Amino acid sequence: MAEFEVLVEVQLRPGIADPQGATIERALPALGFSGVSGVRAGKAFRLRVEAAGPAEAREVAEALSARLLANPVIEEATVRVLTLGEAGPVLG
Amino acid sequence: MAEFEVLVEVQLRPGIADPQGATIERALPALGFSGVSGVRAGKAFRLRVEAAGPAEAREVAEALSARLLANPVIEEATVRVLTLGEAGPVLG
Repeated sequence: MAEFEVLVEVQLRPGIADPQGATIERALPALGFSGVSGVRAGKAFRLRVEAAGPAEAREVAEALSARLLANPVIEEATVRVLTLGEAGPVLG
Repeated sequence: MAEFEVLVEVQLRPGIADPQGATIERALPALGFSGVSGVRAGKAFRLRVEAAGPAEAREVAEALSARLLANPVIEEATVRVLTLGEAGPVLG
């Protein structure tokens, strides 16, 4: 068994109103950022999953996301099993 | 100029208390998920950035994250420029 670092991204489904994302997008031009569109605000969860391989870690994370982390009526979850070097922050 | 899909992950810095993540982690064994640890709850933002290349898209997203999306005192932001096939949700 090894431990896998997993990132679960939860976003509102397309078509569901996202006032937080829309507000950020409207603020950008006044702050000097042009050419940015399609802003969506959601949730990011990090987990360490003990599993025999990355496929099993993904399965556990997907089951867990569907049951606990996302509301399937309005949200969708994307699971990424991170490889070494991908796990750390880019901005300190 | 092309459009790049960017994922910005904002997590609390290591050492900053994360009660939401801790609560999820404590609930997991009773729900049948064992072997999951290190749960952290943060924010995920999606942006479409117009740029000449992925490096420029990343620069814009990093500047924007540092100024708008993360509180650098307690949070850190990770920017990923997504390639085709990586952008969509895994769970529908």
